[in-house]
Amino acid sequence: MRFICNKTELSEAISNVSRAVSPKSTIPALEGIKVRLSPGEAELTAYNLEMGIRTTIKAETEDQGEFVVSARLFSEFTRRMDEDTITFSIDDNLVVNISGSATECSFSAMSAAEYPDLPVVDTERKFTVNQAVLKSMISQTSYAASMNESKPVLTGELFDIQDGKFNMVAIDGFRLAIRCENTEDQGNMQFVVPKKALLEAAALIKDDEKNCNIFTNDRHIIFEINNVVVISRLLEGAFHNYKASIPKEFRTEVIISRRELSSSLDRCSLILDDKNKSPIRFEAGGGIVKINCKTGIGRINDVISADISGDAVTIGFNNKLMLDALKACEGDKVRLRFNGAMKVIEILPMEGESYIFLVMPIQLRN
Amino acid sequence: MRFICNKTELSEAISNVSRAVSPKSTIPALEGIKVRLSPGEAELTAYNLEMGIRTTIKAETEDQGEFVVSARLFSEFTRRMDEDTITFSIDDNLVVNISGSATECSFSAMSAAEYPDLPVVDTERKFTVNQAVLKSMISQTSYAASMNESKPVLTGELFDIQDGKFNMVAIDGFRLAIRCENTEDQGNMQFVVPKKALLEAAALIKDDEKNCNIFTNDRHIIFEINNVVVISRLLEGAFHNYKASIPKEFRTEVIISRRELSSSLDRCSLILDDKNKSPIRFEAGGGIVKINCKTGIGRINDVISADISGDAVTIGFNNKLMLDALKACEGDKVRLRFNGAMKVIEILPMEGESYIFLVMPIQLRN
Repeated sequence: MRFICNKTELSEAISNVSRAVSPKSTIPALEGIKVRLSPGEAELTAYNLEMGIRTTIKAETEDQGEFVVSARLFSEFTRRMDEDTITFSIDDNLVVNISGSATECSFSAMSAAEYPDLPVVDTERKFTVNQAVLKSMISQTSYAASMNESKPVLTGELFDIQDGKFNMVAIDGFRLAIRCENTEDQGNMQFVVPKKALLEAAALIKDDEKNCNIFTNDRHIIFEINNVVVISRLLEGAFHNYKASIPKEFRTEVIISRRELSSSLDRCSLILDDKNKSPIRFEAGGGIVKINCKTGIGRINDVISADISGDAVTIGFNNKLMLDALKACEGDKVRLRFNGAMKVIEILPMEGESYIFLVMPIQLRN
Repeated sequence: MRFICNKTELSEAISNVSRAVSPKSTIPALEGIKVRLSPGEAELTAYNLEMGIRTTIKAETEDQGEFVVSARLFSEFTRRMDEDTITFSIDDNLVVNISGSATECSFSAMSAAEYPDLPVVDTERKFTVNQAVLKSMISQTSYAASMNESKPVLTGELFDIQDGKFNMVAIDGFRLAIRCENTEDQGNMQFVVPKKALLEAAALIKDDEKNCNIFTNDRHIIFEINNVVVISRLLEGAFHNYKASIPKEFRTEVIISRRELSSSLDRCSLILDDKNKSPIRFEAGGGIVKINCKTGIGRINDVISADISGDAVTIGFNNKLMLDALKACEGDKVRLRFNGAMKVIEILPMEGESYIFLVMPIQLRN
């Protein structure tokens, strides 16, 4: 077998599929990339049994066939070739030869016989979303997915497509993040995608204006991002009924500078660590918000002016949970809504409800 | 005590002295920075008993006195203040208060009583070197200093000032790096400076045209870099007689592209690891250099054209040692000199002898 291709295109393809290579596996082939040659093209696939990525590049090919190469050697040798065009030839003993004008390198490939096939997903259940929108939906919600494997379904994100609305939802028991978009697709679908697959899909989007096609069946999902395909298993189990968690009313609304509040909570994080824990005391009333925190390390007393309507409120919360939510917000100002000291805190954009973040309160001692 | 200073100046001063803070010490004060207030200025000192750094910034001060603050809290709180001017007040219980327009933070300081004094070095034995030159001398030689603590003196670099020449020398038993400069100082001095102190001194140089004053006594050295002072102990023991290691003649000289040779050795590094070791086979003759390397991972056969004078030579060497030396070279081409397969390899610039790098050969099997 022999193929000739452009160095830059190959490097990019290897770097894209490498996101699905197992760093360490009991099946050595899974540490590699499968290359399949057909007339005029080379298809590259990586699959770690949870997620797979596949892409195709133009190549001058002789013969058809497939083999598996170490992802590390494939990537590093390609990068270290001096020429723009690289020639690979693979002999019957599966030795890969790479030749340039002044170099000849060779290393062993593996048989593709042991490489598992990617799951097949038919293209019946399909919907479409703009790539940049998909990327922002993932980045605004993924922080809230659970890290705790004891309830695996919550380590993923719910895709809830219903009546022209597409909601992406993550929850970990202490907070909840919802991002809402309108969609032209009229189907109704609910499924849960592992966070890791979403982050990899988002990383493959380079601020593109194009659409991403999404196909699913009961067990798998496919993201088609330009000429790269990401395939992931879905997570099984019942997701939290998130709509029931969203408060229907509120007793206090605080409009506050996102930068000033983040800056204050950032300072609080300096006196908080594993040994020195304390909730943030947040007191809103009379046009100002007071932030107080005290631990064995030190003490912070901040005052931020804010636009407050409704009842005065004093509430406690976890510093990191609130900072994560503020980071995922957009715009200079945010709306915070409260229903008293023991009810969930709601974080919303200034206009509309394109995202809704919820953070559980912590009871204050005094 | 109270002092008011500029945020940016203070941040830079903290970041400079922090290089000498102990990350973890049995003496808690050594994890801090000592601040000494005197009329119009604040002096910051960090000292880990091997190396100390001291600098002074302008400050509006009330009272004189000193205290020690956690380097982490000092740096992070300063960075997270919104104002350009920061006010610190330290009460009798050593509680530090930092106030800005909308914030008040406080944390505990420590008494300066337990903080060790920096060694005193008189200013008799002095010489001067341009800061940019000092930085390049360090970066071109420090890679060759020994990592092996069994002979501590070789973990440092020799400063050899004699008859208007200033040589900086590092050696680890497998390689040697010498960087030579002329100096106007007429004194004769030899001493060995720990590599860590040199790297920190180099990091404090921001490509400055100014000179660095260097003072020494038998046990310590001081580098005066702008308004920052670095103090380090010297290493004791006899340094290697490096001049005797420099070959007086050569049988083969190879002038070769530094980029092409590095690029080839870079490829060889892909097939070398802890389990797969092999010397590089370097064969020079007939206008070309052949580079060969073969391990359990793969095989590299490269050909590079070169300007070769003298005998043909076939020699083995360690890939990393040669790559380190080539990285420390300057210019497009380098001169390699050989005295047969079992003698040290000499690496020189195209013109002159501003640096001399030596690499030990490795015997080839066939």
